[in-house]
Amino acid sequence: MDRDTISQLLEQRQFEPLQRTLTQSNAVDVARLLEDARPEEAIVVFRLLPKNLALAVFEELPAERQSRLLEAFTGDAAREMLDAMSPDDRAALLDEVPAAVARRLLRLLSPAERQVTMEILGYPRGAAGRLMTPDFVDLRQDMTAAQALERVRRLAMDRETIYYAYVTDNQRHLLGTVSLKDLVLADPARRVSDLMEPNPKSILTTTDQEEAARVLLVYDLLAAPVADSEGRLVGIVTWDDMTDVMEQEVTEDFYRYGAVEASGQRYFRMGLLRVARQRVVWLFLLILVNTVTGSIIAGQSDLLQEVVILAAFVPLLIGTGGNVGAQSSTVVIRGLATGEISGGQAAAIVGREVAVGALLGAVLGTVVVGWAYALGRDIRVGFIVGITLVAISTFAAMAGGALPYLFRLFKVDPAMVSAPFITTVMDILGVSLYFLIAHLILRL
Amino acid sequence: MDRDTISQLLEQRQFEPLQRTLTQSNAVDVARLLEDARPEEAIVVFRLLPKNLALAVFEELPAERQSRLLEAFTGDAAREMLDAMSPDDRAALLDEVPAAVARRLLRLLSPAERQVTMEILGYPRGAAGRLMTPDFVDLRQDMTAAQALERVRRLAMDRETIYYAYVTDNQRHLLGTVSLKDLVLADPARRVSDLMEPNPKSILTTTDQEEAARVLLVYDLLAAPVADSEGRLVGIVTWDDMTDVMEQEVTEDFYRYGAVEASGQRYFRMGLLRVARQRVVWLFLLILVNTVTGSIIAGQSDLLQEVVILAAFVPLLIGTGGNVGAQSSTVVIRGLATGEISGGQAAAIVGREVAVGALLGAVLGTVVVGWAYALGRDIRVGFIVGITLVAISTFAAMAGGALPYLFRLFKVDPAMVSAPFITTVMDILGVSLYFLIAHLILRL
Repeated sequence: MDRDTISQLLEQRQFEPLQRTLTQSNAVDVARLLEDARPEEAIVVFRLLPKNLALAVFEELPAERQSRLLEAFTGDAAREMLDAMSPDDRAALLDEVPAAVARRLLRLLSPAERQVTMEILGYPRGAAGRLMTPDFVDLRQDMTAAQALERVRRLAMDRETIYYAYVTDNQRHLLGTVSLKDLVLADPARRVSDLMEPNPKSILTTTDQEEAARVLLVYDLLAAPVADSEGRLVGIVTWDDMTDVMEQEVTEDFYRYGAVEASGQRYFRMGLLRVARQRVVWLFLLILVNTVTGSIIAGQSDLLQEVVILAAFVPLLIGTGGNVGAQSSTVVIRGLATGEISGGQAAAIVGREVAVGALLGAVLGTVVVGWAYALGRDIRVGFIVGITLVAISTFAAMAGGALPYLFRLFKVDPAMVSAPFITTVMDILGVSLYFLIAHLILRL
Repeated sequence: MDRDTISQLLEQRQFEPLQRTLTQSNAVDVARLLEDARPEEAIVVFRLLPKNLALAVFEELPAERQSRLLEAFTGDAAREMLDAMSPDDRAALLDEVPAAVARRLLRLLSPAERQVTMEILGYPRGAAGRLMTPDFVDLRQDMTAAQALERVRRLAMDRETIYYAYVTDNQRHLLGTVSLKDLVLADPARRVSDLMEPNPKSILTTTDQEEAARVLLVYDLLAAPVADSEGRLVGIVTWDDMTDVMEQEVTEDFYRYGAVEASGQRYFRMGLLRVARQRVVWLFLLILVNTVTGSIIAGQSDLLQEVVILAAFVPLLIGTGGNVGAQSSTVVIRGLATGEISGGQAAAIVGREVAVGALLGAVLGTVVVGWAYALGRDIRVGFIVGITLVAISTFAAMAGGALPYLFRLFKVDPAMVSAPFITTVMDILGVSLYFLIAHLILRL
């Protein structure tokens, strides 16, 4: 199925071959197609889908497209689509649409589904509670494997995953998990209590979604149970939601590191003003910082008038400072994000980075002395530039290593130590060191 | 289970309580512990583990630890551990150890396992064939659901996943997939051909691992079938391998974007010289580029001697250029990596970025004119700085938007357009524009 064929068939109003093509397609592919189509086109295509595929496609669409489609359908069809959604996706949809629309949609739901949805919406944004689904299979520990499998079969249709089942007591406290694999393989007469894995990894409703995703990732789980503050099992989070979370979080980190505010919106969906607004605050702050650099240089007019060639090395020196700092912060930020390095290792890491920075500075400084001498025909200038480069490299690696930790200490995402930020910090530090060293050497 | 307790018990040689604690622990946690322990300690702890846990822990360890453990055990125990590994993990281990060790380990394997491993090692690094496991459940389409389920039960023990089974014909061509869920739910008399999903998404052995991971991610699959060049099913890749791949690829992108060479090694495992080597090449290249910037400024000594205050604005101007460029490239690089923007949209995106850059330049330029005038007490300097900022912003956004595409065109990872790289490019472009505009305005 390709997009061009579809639009062509649509334009020529050849609905029958179009319907045939669509019926054989994957829900994800159809959703992609609808997402990029014009709204009216999307509605026409959606109406052609067989019901099961339509419901699957609907769940894959972004909230904005979902609400447009819901508007285009009458009460009953809309109700059916909403009821068929898994509770976590439905909560995400209601979260995105305007409050008035959300209220109208909530009224469409059956009372049971409405209550489930309201509960999920009660958890804060970004918490595991928002992403969980209460549709899991629960078992009792005195069931036999055969009884358990029978229960799985009965519940399977409207459960998000049946690959794990959760064993609870009368108070709904989680006792263990059993995988469908274990149930299928077990002697039918064995007790669930013998089959279950006790003390499973579980997540709290209030756990941050990124942390929740990391639990699934680290322990290679398809789903993890979510417990409320009283330790009662209230839902599960599944791997497909968690991969979405990871992808979002990576984009957020990447954007932050590039000093762009993440909006969660698709690039082409945003107007130019919106795009500019995402970036201007950071740029403005960085310019403010850079006025300090300017003032420092302006304060050195006498020195520059005397040895004007010194101005030629400013970009190289502060640029290298920025680059070394960006390298150090990249390694530390990513290490903290993946959990490869921990909070307690701050001192060791900053120490290592300082050593690496000094080493890099020594190598690069040696190379640059010669070039600076050639350009300035003044051996003192050569030394000033070389020594400054060593100092800047060392400080840059220290700042790049330490700042992400410092940010974390104040509960700010370490990725906020963006490459532009560290570059700008090193501009100030760099010119200060440069003029300090120049004064020391020239006034020997 | 926490690390301190374990090391304490180990030091006091209290092996019994240590064994009790370990037995109740998760394999992933124990593997983490062994990874950070001293080698001799790791071997002692490993010997205390019950056999099943030991095998699970072994698979979770990095190759270097695995080969050390294998050395510490006699032939039979080592053979057992190797044979129990899944073929893809085993291939990864053999890939990491020195060739002589790899040959020794291969000889330990049973002939069947050896052949499977050799086959996987025959695919190029980074290809899906390297990550696949040939241990999947295959079915025939004329089986009933009951027969199929029986086969799943029989094969389950040594199959990596039983949540999907693959339907093949006599020539091992893939006909469709059936999920365990469908088999469990189906009427036992129904034919597999009625239950299977035909035309499943499949991957080639030669497909890049990142692309393979994306197929699983986009279509929310737990596993995908891998076919050879003749369309025969030879293995499957599973979601746990794919999340590892995604994490690796993200780290690689992040490192590249910070101008650090990715090594795949853990930070604390590398010596300082190794860390410095990861970074020095980029820094050196960037310094080379920056000597051009220096030469341009040196060539303007006369102008600077005359209006020395112009030197004060260099860091602010080239810094802002770097920042705007970093923002644009961040958005484009990440968009290309997630597939949100495609290769064909290059012109539209560069156009948008140019518009955004000009807009940002206009806003920031207006602010800066006043400050430049205040510092220089010369309205011409104010205008030079303001106009340059607009020009630099526009060019920077253009470069940041276009360079990732240009790199892609030449089959270089777009993430190679690192923040340091774009910053350095903007240094040259920035000072050139600055002096050009200064000359135009001052020689009015």
